[in-house]
Amino acid sequence: MSYKAICLVLLLASATVALASQDPKLQQCKHQCHSQRHADDKQIRQCEDRCEDYYRQKHHDNDRSPIQKLRECNRDCERRHQEQEQEQEHGDRQREDCQRRCQERYEKETQSYEERGRHGRDSYQEYQKQTNNPYVFEDRHFFTGMQTQHGRLRILQKFTERSDLLRGIENYRVAVLEAQPQTFILPSHLDADILAFVARGRGAVNMVREERRESFNIKEGDIFRIHAGTTSYLVNRDNNERLVLIKLIQPVNTPGQFEQFYGAGGQNPESYFKAFSDEILEAAFNVDGERVKRLFGQQRQGAIIKASSEQIRSMSQHQEGGIWPFGGESKGTHNIYDKRPIYNNKYGQYYEVESSQFRQLRDLDIAISFSNMSQGAMTVPFYNSKAAKIAVVVEGEGYFEMACPHLSQSQSQRQSRRSEEEEEEESYRPRGETTSYKTVRSRLSTGTVVVVPAGHPFVAVASNNQNLQIVSFKVNADNNEQFTLAGRRNVMNQLEREAKELAFGMPAREVEEVLRSQKEEFFLEGPGRRADA
Amino acid sequence: MSYKAICLVLLLASATVALASQDPKLQQCKHQCHSQRHADDKQIRQCEDRCEDYYRQKHHDNDRSPIQKLRECNRDCERRHQEQEQEQEHGDRQREDCQRRCQERYEKETQSYEERGRHGRDSYQEYQKQTNNPYVFEDRHFFTGMQTQHGRLRILQKFTERSDLLRGIENYRVAVLEAQPQTFILPSHLDADILAFVARGRGAVNMVREERRESFNIKEGDIFRIHAGTTSYLVNRDNNERLVLIKLIQPVNTPGQFEQFYGAGGQNPESYFKAFSDEILEAAFNVDGERVKRLFGQQRQGAIIKASSEQIRSMSQHQEGGIWPFGGESKGTHNIYDKRPIYNNKYGQYYEVESSQFRQLRDLDIAISFSNMSQGAMTVPFYNSKAAKIAVVVEGEGYFEMACPHLSQSQSQRQSRRSEEEEEEESYRPRGETTSYKTVRSRLSTGTVVVVPAGHPFVAVASNNQNLQIVSFKVNADNNEQFTLAGRRNVMNQLEREAKELAFGMPAREVEEVLRSQKEEFFLEGPGRRADA
Amino acid sequence: MSYKAICLVLLLASATVALASQDPKLQQCKHQCHSQRHADDKQIRQCEDRCEDYYRQKHHDNDRSPIQKLRECNRDCERRHQEQEQEQEHGDRQREDCQRRCQERYEKETQSYEERGRHGRDSYQEYQKQTNNPYVFEDRHFFTGMQTQHGRLRILQKFTERSDLLRGIENYRVAVLEAQPQTFILPSHLDADILAFVARGRGAVNMVREERRESFNIKEGDIFRIHAGTTSYLVNRDNNERLVLIKLIQPVNTPGQFEQFYGAGGQNPESYFKAFSDEILEAAFNVDGERVKRLFGQQRQGAIIKASSEQIRSMSQHQEGGIWPFGGESKGTHNIYDKRPIYNNKYGQYYEVESSQFRQLRDLDIAISFSNMSQGAMTVPFYNSKAAKIAVVVEGEGYFEMACPHLSQSQSQRQSRRSEEEEEEESYRPRGETTSYKTVRSRLSTGTVVVVPAGHPFVAVASNNQNLQIVSFKVNADNNEQFTLAGRRNVMNQLEREAKELAFGMPAREVEEVLRSQKEEFFLEGPGRRADA
Repeated sequence: MSYKAICLVLLLASATVALASQDPKLQQCKHQCHSQRHADDKQIRQCEDRCEDYYRQKHHDNDRSPIQKLRECNRDCERRHQEQEQEQEHGDRQREDCQRRCQERYEKETQSYEERGRHGRDSYQEYQKQTNNPYVFEDRHFFTGMQTQHGRLRILQKFTERSDLLRGIENYRVAVLEAQPQTFILPSHLDADILAFVARGRGAVNMVREERRESFNIKEGDIFRIHAGTTSYLVNRDNNERLVLIKLIQPVNTPGQFEQFYGAGGQNPESYFKAFSDEILEAAFNVDGERVKRLFGQQRQGAIIKASSEQIRSMSQHQEGGIWPFGGESKGTHNIYDKRPIYNNKYGQYYEVESSQFRQLRDLDIAISFSNMSQGAMTVPFYNSKAAKIAVVVEGEGYFEMACPHLSQSQSQRQSRRSEEEEEEESYRPRGETTSYKTVRSRLSTGTVVVVPAGHPFVAVASNNQNLQIVSFKVNADNNEQFTLAGRRNVMNQLEREAKELAFGMPAREVEEVLRSQKEEFFLEGPGRRADA
Repeated sequence: MSYKAICLVLLLASATVALASQDPKLQQCKHQCHSQRHADDKQIRQCEDRCEDYYRQKHHDNDRSPIQKLRECNRDCERRHQEQEQEQEHGDRQREDCQRRCQERYEKETQSYEERGRHGRDSYQEYQKQTNNPYVFEDRHFFTGMQTQHGRLRILQKFTERSDLLRGIENYRVAVLEAQPQTFILPSHLDADILAFVARGRGAVNMVREERRESFNIKEGDIFRIHAGTTSYLVNRDNNERLVLIKLIQPVNTPGQFEQFYGAGGQNPESYFKAFSDEILEAAFNVDGERVKRLFGQQRQGAIIKASSEQIRSMSQHQEGGIWPFGGESKGTHNIYDKRPIYNNKYGQYYEVESSQFRQLRDLDIAISFSNMSQGAMTVPFYNSKAAKIAVVVEGEGYFEMACPHLSQSQSQRQSRRSEEEEEEESYRPRGETTSYKTVRSRLSTGTVVVVPAGHPFVAVASNNQNLQIVSFKVNADNNEQFTLAGRRNVMNQLEREAKELAFGMPAREVEEVLRSQKEEFFLEGPGRRADA
Repeated sequence: MSYKAICLVLLLASATVALASQDPKLQQCKHQCHSQRHADDKQIRQCEDRCEDYYRQKHHDNDRSPIQKLRECNRDCERRHQEQEQEQEHGDRQREDCQRRCQERYEKETQSYEERGRHGRDSYQEYQKQTNNPYVFEDRHFFTGMQTQHGRLRILQKFTERSDLLRGIENYRVAVLEAQPQTFILPSHLDADILAFVARGRGAVNMVREERRESFNIKEGDIFRIHAGTTSYLVNRDNNERLVLIKLIQPVNTPGQFEQFYGAGGQNPESYFKAFSDEILEAAFNVDGERVKRLFGQQRQGAIIKASSEQIRSMSQHQEGGIWPFGGESKGTHNIYDKRPIYNNKYGQYYEVESSQFRQLRDLDIAISFSNMSQGAMTVPFYNSKAAKIAVVVEGEGYFEMACPHLSQSQSQRQSRRSEEEEEEESYRPRGETTSYKTVRSRLSTGTVVVVPAGHPFVAVASNNQNLQIVSFKVNADNNEQFTLAGRRNVMNQLEREAKELAFGMPAREVEEVLRSQKEEFFLEGPGRRADA
């Protein structure tokens, strides 16, 4: 298949919006892979992979803005170019053609984007809200902030890029750091506060503050904070296991935007010292230009590099959880498993660290919770009174359901323009009709991020094969209450008898019979297990 | 009158902008109602009602964005369709025609909206600011959040929908709940904090918290708070009088946006449980599907329903103002009339509850004040140093005036493009000329909402026929000072003699003579009464 | 030169974008001034001044939005019209022509602005970011808020007008007040908190609070606060020197927007009392209309006026720094030079007042620092951990450099669309490449304002001829740490030996040799001096 053809397929693919699972375009694309002349098996496989890629892209085309698509398109041109170079010499012009096509497509799209824009402000986002569920983030919603062969940092897109409904958590970002065994992550600082949860592995953290250095070892379940502007570096001190940190990042300069500053570095990662002119650096360090140049010229291996066993050992001689050096009043880390679980039965355990319990959380108004659900178990339906929950699946599979009035409205509006036939029950719907709720439902697997806004009833279910482990950052957590809607402590059951009668339109006794059947408290036997039983 | 003709009238009506109170188009519309063939009296009356509706719509056309108008237009098509169905079978195509016309009109409107948009960003809002006073909200600025034959909830539009100048209070919403005697308002929670003022009537409130239920009776003048996420329900326990609550709502998820969540309900109000799939509900409640379905299938009467005398009685056996159950340190309500008035003379009384005085207000940075002005009285001109005031007229009539520099600027810019002739005094106007002030003046009547930004001098005047009662929510209230500009405690009078002389450009003695003539303090004899005297 | 021709030059001038310092258009413009028929010397000079004006405008054309340009253009038409009136009678039509041309130009501009707008939202700002450095503000970024022959108030444009990157400090504004010797600045209040630094001169401040007046004398180095809504007035009590105040203004109503309210005034400054109707004022002051009219009719001299020696003397009899009248717990002002400098060597002194040290700063979360750098000296590279710094040059000349990752990104994106050839080092650039940094470098001279975001490494250098004095407002200052990147207390030097080795990719010993060469702490010998030596 020629270079040109690949480009074409790319363009075709991203231009379509069909959503059928057996897409004829995908089939056709794969078919064309096989009809490539002179292609060997590996090339055919690569080609098919690309078809799949396009197919996936097509299906979340709506999630990306035209400018994002332009960037991806150009990047694909580049990638193709590099792959092609081994095969042919005259790739440059073809890359240019490819990029020109990207540009044309972009202009066409922004045109129609503008067109759509005419139908009301924020209509692009409106459109997103209608066709997608803006609360679930998967692999494709992350981009790679930094990567070497020894690890990478993946950053979740801004919440507000996804939906205006998430404006309330605009200033929070999520990132996941993965480092191979026995590696060193170069010192850097962020213009942001970081709250980190150790999802996997064993490491050591160093933070350079104004007058001292703070060092401590970290292990699975540890929570620690890196204050904005603190130069810090990490070591994966394990010989075999990856170190995985889940980070909640809170920028201090521009809402939702942060940057990473590497000082000790060279060409890659580039040191910020390189932005200063030579005469400034000479004067600042009081040495001649050559030595400065040399200092910031050696490092070319990237921000995550291999370290020797001796180096690792020497940088890991800290106390577990390291006593905080200033006065010893508090530890640098807090292990979530050290806490007594708030809920604990055969279906699961629920741990929580409130901001009042861990000095490092105090000024952040954030709590962290951790759920470990047994295979086939589920949570009761519940909601948080005022905190928004940013949940990340640490391990396992399952699904969740959430009742969502916002989506429902735009949904019902859309429906009303199309097929009134379906809404039989609403044949007479006075203007002042109360809210109706849409189901948000999505699969959960390792790495999935879910936002559960305050007040929204929510339930999570573990698959029958594996435990489901979720860490949640609760934003706006002070004085938050977690209300359960079924099980032993059930909001509905606390209504007065008369209120039950009037609200449900049936005898209170009957209402109570249903509300009191479930004896468990927070974790229950899930629907899959019940079916088995 | 044919279906098509009604649509046409609708389109005509919303297309015109004339404001005459004897609109010929309205007359014509009503006339057409009578010329309907085969129409009975009831149909004619309905037709006339619709004319009135259009008329009203026409008059606040400018307040609604094109997308809002599109929705209303579609809704009207729908309503018409449903009413017509009894009369004719082939309504479907006609409805589609009607909707197509809505769409066409919308596209035309957004076109011109875009056109206007070219003359600078935010020009639509700019336009609103120029043609309207963005600080006064009347009946037409509310929409109906929920309504049954026994009551309704009316919600004020978002402040920022009206003007960008109100961005500072973006996260506050106002709503008014009215319930008929002996009614029950179904349990629900909001993703918002609520501060409620009982404007009229006697009721009982129930709130379900994590571990307990809090219940108390309420009466006129009471202030109480419902924390975000708290499931609460209300009773109007009076046999004859409506219960009216004025609510300040502070969303916790998305700035300025909130949703209502009904758990105990059924089909209307829809219960949020209905968003969960059957197997989830079965597992959660540990009962079979039929019983769950029955539980959430009975209620069809809406969110405000009639209750029996026995039910009311049983749900009203709480202490007045109800001692707060946890430790008894504070009551659940606070009655504003229990306070000693800050100002009190024959022209009026001024009460205020500061956030430090009522535990429920503390973390909200809000104060509540209540003015009762005698017939024909007025306030001195005054301003708040840092609080923005959201004032709601509880009872009575009158008017207010406010000095407003923002409006003045856009105003003067507009003028300068049209008639320089008028601005004679400004024949030499150096670039650095100081601010000038525009008068914002509007009628006040029961239900009018007025926003008075910090620093803006303001005066309210009661009509000669009736007392004027205003409740005000002061946002950003901590350390706020209320400065009076005339009367006994007069800011101007506190200037040094030399400052008076220099500032007013006349002898200090003369300045002081004027500033000291008014002996009253906050409430005065208004201009109407003075004229009578 | 005819009226028409002047208009034409104006339009031509603002239409060009050339940046050469010897602009032929400017020369031509001046030449035309001399060829005016019947023009006397004064008229020619005025004409030339105008040419210079246009020239300057042309050069910062890109900083102003189309709507701003329209306003200026119309204002120029007006000014011309008024000047012309002495020469010719039929100026009205010509002014209209001039304004029509302004309008046409505006429409053309917004067209292209819209066009640019198609290539992504916020593209105008994006464009600014790319062509300009959004962190430096000079003379042309101020506008005149108020001016008389005795002084003026200059206000810096909104930070967010310049760049979205400055959203984090959106609610801060900077203004500079200058008053001639022996002058009186009329009483007014703002809907904003003011933090003022006395950059030059000696004065007296009066503030009218709810129950009292607070008065104190001020002198160079003093910091004082005026709470939002407080009516205050000022005196320059010096016989010879100007009084210069640098103000940080924090609006309380609408983010980033404030207004000035003059009560005691008349026609100029206009009193806000003039916005109230006559009958209201009569009733409020309890005097007849004539006397009210007279009170607010005399002042026509503007907001800064000359005062007699006796008046000045009488209004300056306050204690230096004035004991705060309420309880005496704190003074009304705080002099920054009274503090012991945090850094002090032969190259400079650094003073800082933290919010915990001065009661007036406490709720503002702001610190104020002052640097006095010797001729030819520089600071070490340093950054603030979480505070954004708004620095104003009080006196002197020099330059600064800052490492900036944000700009670098948009920069590189732009490049990638144009000339891949240039980016040789990036021939293989994996997706996850770390940040690179752009140098932001700019001259500093009296009045320059620089924003240094948190985390951004920064260095300032004084010229060889003059000390450089900078006052900085640090926003978001609580728990801020200032990290130095070279010199004795050097963040890099605190890394573990292994970390140095790994991060810099060279032996720790070599790294440390460079990092320890500089023995000074914060102020150093600058590159200019080193070159001399």
